[in-house]
Amino acid sequence: MVVQRRLVECVPNISEGRRPEVIDSVVDAVRRTAGVRLLNVQSDASHNRSVITFAGDPEACGRAAVALARRAVELIDMRRHAGEHPRLGAVDVIPFVPVSGTTMEECVALARRVGADIWEAVRLPVYFYAEAAASPARVRLPDIRKGEFEGLAEKMAQSEWAPDVGNPAPHESAGAVVVGARRPLVAYNINLTTTDVSVARAIARTIRESSGGLPAVQAMGVLATTGQAQVSINLLNLTTTPIARVFDAVRAEAGRHGAAVAESEVVGLVPLDAVLDVVRAALHLRGFERTQVLEALLME
Amino acid sequence: MVVQRRLVECVPNISEGRRPEVIDSVVDAVRRTAGVRLLNVQSDASHNRSVITFAGDPEACGRAAVALARRAVELIDMRRHAGEHPRLGAVDVIPFVPVSGTTMEECVALARRVGADIWEAVRLPVYFYAEAAASPARVRLPDIRKGEFEGLAEKMAQSEWAPDVGNPAPHESAGAVVVGARRPLVAYNINLTTTDVSVARAIARTIRESSGGLPAVQAMGVLATTGQAQVSINLLNLTTTPIARVFDAVRAEAGRHGAAVAESEVVGLVPLDAVLDVVRAALHLRGFERTQVLEALLME
Repeated sequence: MVVQRRLVECVPNISEGRRPEVIDSVVDAVRRTAGVRLLNVQSDASHNRSVITFAGDPEACGRAAVALARRAVELIDMRRHAGEHPRLGAVDVIPFVPVSGTTMEECVALARRVGADIWEAVRLPVYFYAEAAASPARVRLPDIRKGEFEGLAEKMAQSEWAPDVGNPAPHESAGAVVVGARRPLVAYNINLTTTDVSVARAIARTIRESSGGLPAVQAMGVLATTGQAQVSINLLNLTTTPIARVFDAVRAEAGRHGAAVAESEVVGLVPLDAVLDVVRAALHLRGFERTQVLEALLME
Repeated sequence: MVVQRRLVECVPNISEGRRPEVIDSVVDAVRRTAGVRLLNVQSDASHNRSVITFAGDPEACGRAAVALARRAVELIDMRRHAGEHPRLGAVDVIPFVPVSGTTMEECVALARRVGADIWEAVRLPVYFYAEAAASPARVRLPDIRKGEFEGLAEKMAQSEWAPDVGNPAPHESAGAVVVGARRPLVAYNINLTTTDVSVARAIARTIRESSGGLPAVQAMGVLATTGQAQVSINLLNLTTTPIARVFDAVRAEAGRHGAAVAESEVVGLVPLDAVLDVVRAALHLRGFERTQVLEALLME
């Protein structure tokens, strides 16, 4: 019997996007951890922030996250940090994402362990967010991050904002860290055969959850760099609303406005399961398993 | 820069499908070769034949194929072999298939090297077939296999059937082996919303290459075990005719007969690239790369 490989993705954001030697030194903590693979590093100078993506088995991802947090706390001083993106600490947020052979429950447990280990290692207070949140007030990142590093001492002194792990006072130079578990996100854009951005905006309103459309879908209408009207979409739960269902909905709505889909674009990474769901829907497939994909079988 | 992992699939067929200890001992030669992964073993007692599937980098696949041939020659005596499937030798055929990061030209070169190594190791004469064939008369397996093991001495004595490597006489107990390179094959069935098998037969005639339909497509109409009429398809070249094009053609033809596609089924393994082609077509995707699939990126 084939046992599916246990795979977790981890996407820590650190508060350094300008000094390459600092970014590289923090990322090196991931590179040096056995059992994980560094997939991407994206730095933004105006945000003064870097997004690091790696993956591996859950235990190795946990070790890499703690090692990365330790290096970020050593090297990044928030008292001298400025950037456009809101942030609470040197290692600002650490989400764990179940990719294959792992459940959300395992990622929540992993987040909790990693939070405890980070406090133990470097005395950085920890908030748990998203699926790992201990209360509804701590589910959303913007709520936890409100007040930012500069307002953190005052915020933590309020009993309702005591950290989930550690003392209710910020780390002097590194602030606090938000650790959690969330589903894979997919950023997905659909370009229309019209240059009329109002059509894209109308379609976005129809399909997004916030205005009564498809669950776990965020959407807005914009003008693409190609000059085409574009429906720009975030898919927050690929099980509830798979990519193919969004595509079909946008195609149908575009038709009502006398337009059509010109092309679409997946931005960044997608899990194989999301890709296979598209194939299953497109071909009306019965019983198609990921282990029928030669490369996926090789990974097991 | 991401360098794509060099991956070849090898699917040797051996002339033993009844004695599990012999099959296991031959397969063990693959298991013991570093750098390859055994993916599947399928034995058929009435054919008295087993199909072994493994994959890995080209060099490792070559070593595993030679090791497997050596064990098959040691353990299988064709003078005592009977089965329903035509065969020429103990290890009957060894095809190499480019999966990712490798070209057909590399697989042809690999087949030639493996043929030379097998002759060197066990004095088994070698024919090259398919993309590795040295002449048009040797492209098709049935042509080479005609006369089978029992007629091999007489066949090899004819100058036009001298082997590509080795002496023009069969190995006493193991006959000869056919080594080659071919594209990935996909076996794909589409079930219709009708029980009328004549509809499936008419659609098969329209879409298959032999009656003027889609290139590199074989198709026949059959009755599925579900009771539905089924178009049973082999896709011989996924670049020339991708899965999605066949699905669209069958759907359109079914509509002309007042039927529709009920469901479809991929039999066995498919390369990731074939899966991604379906997604690209279904979503009108622009610029979607295999390294955007998290699991594929991990494999690089």
